[in-house]
Amino acid sequence: MMPPPPLRLHLLFRSETLIPLLRQRPSCDAPHCRTRRYISVRASAAQLAAADVSTAQQPALELGLEAAAAGFVTGKRKATEVAHAFWRNIVQKGDTVVDATCGNGNDTLALLKMVADETGRGRVYGMDIQDSAIENTSSFLKMAVDDEHQRGLVKLFPICHSRMEEIVPKDAPVRLVAFNLGYLPGGDKTVITVPRTTELALRAASRILSSGGLISVLVYIGHPGGRDELDVVESFSSSLPVDTWVTCKLQMLNRPVSPVLVLLNKK
Amino acid sequence: MMPPPPLRLHLLFRSETLIPLLRQRPSCDAPHCRTRRYISVRASAAQLAAADVSTAQQPALELGLEAAAAGFVTGKRKATEVAHAFWRNIVQKGDTVVDATCGNGNDTLALLKMVADETGRGRVYGMDIQDSAIENTSSFLKMAVDDEHQRGLVKLFPICHSRMEEIVPKDAPVRLVAFNLGYLPGGDKTVITVPRTTELALRAASRILSSGGLISVLVYIGHPGGRDELDVVESFSSSLPVDTWVTCKLQMLNRPVSPVLVLLNKK
Repeated sequence: MMPPPPLRLHLLFRSETLIPLLRQRPSCDAPHCRTRRYISVRASAAQLAAADVSTAQQPALELGLEAAAAGFVTGKRKATEVAHAFWRNIVQKGDTVVDATCGNGNDTLALLKMVADETGRGRVYGMDIQDSAIENTSSFLKMAVDDEHQRGLVKLFPICHSRMEEIVPKDAPVRLVAFNLGYLPGGDKTVITVPRTTELALRAASRILSSGGLISVLVYIGHPGGRDELDVVESFSSSLPVDTWVTCKLQMLNRPVSPVLVLLNKK
Repeated sequence: MMPPPPLRLHLLFRSETLIPLLRQRPSCDAPHCRTRRYISVRASAAQLAAADVSTAQQPALELGLEAAAAGFVTGKRKATEVAHAFWRNIVQKGDTVVDATCGNGNDTLALLKMVADETGRGRVYGMDIQDSAIENTSSFLKMAVDDEHQRGLVKLFPICHSRMEEIVPKDAPVRLVAFNLGYLPGGDKTVITVPRTTELALRAASRILSSGGLISVLVYIGHPGGRDELDVVESFSSSLPVDTWVTCKLQMLNRPVSPVLVLLNKK
């Protein structure tokens, strides 16, 4: 068995970019700012693998939108694969993107692959209210990405996603903000995102998103409170003005606990 | 202005295939079997064009699934284009398909293009409870398709779609059944499909569909009764067993009267 994932990378990120920002951060309603995606800070590589974090490196994640959409309808592809295919369709090398719920780092890595190129202009701003999630994401990135310069394009922050405006530079046009709401299947079902801060985070995302950008929200609904959170996401999405937003959802009908993919496109 | 569309083609279809079948048809609850897509039997070519029936010949309808899905999310493509893209993804030359709501023939023509080849094995079984819709579809096909042999692959029947099992040969594996529910935008809003027969039609479609096939339901909801019909479609779709069906929907959120696309895939 491999040793526990080192904290060095995480601390490196923090020492470079996070601590100065956190010094000036206002108080956050921490009790409501809970993340769904975390595994123990002591998780081994085997545990990370068991938690399926390694799938981010599989060819399936490079699926085109056509294959993803057709596969979703026929039950062969998951909503998360459809989400990633939509992201790839809109995100370009050099873009600034946000992972609002880092969890174990799957989406963070996928986003990094989409924006990273030799120019080094791309940025992934990732956040999670739980230190352990940030640490796991750091560890996962170190395992998955050999190029230290490329890893440096990811900026991780242990804060609530409702505070994303504090960490994303104001002059950076944000092409994508990605959310994964709910809890990690197989994980601790008491550790979930909650409607109030999710709504604040969606509002923040809608403000920082640039024209032509996308907010992607994958809502897990199979746990207590999951439907309430979906209601909040749908209500917010439905309220956005039609002249500047196109919002839609993709939902399974005969699999009532399957996650719902909500996509908000800013014109 | 061109002369009114001739009835000859419609009568030709009927004389060859329809009348013998109708002789033995049981009684149908005609008051409930109303179609949404019809324009006057006296409609001119100009009226057909104004009703947008000609769009079936535009390159947009050859849109790939990737472009259609990406376009839908960004508000550039309509749900009907996404539906056609899904059809094209699953329908092959030589297949048997069903247009459960012919209307003015847009979908019928699109389906014909998908199944027609030199072998002449493909078939499109189209139906509509309103004679005028069948006549318009015939006229439209005659205008749009020069090849008489190819037009002959379409079999049209002026019956309620709940009776589709009476007209589709039992030995023909059906790859796709397409529904367009509601009323024609800009048309007579009192002429609509209704939940009871729609549910019967969906049940019939689920029985004749072959493994690997797709039922596509585009539900227009902007008229009185539209939401009730969506409820019936969703309820039926949700009730299908997960071991043999994958059912899902694609729905706009900040455009409450936009049609909802429901897709039922038989494993």
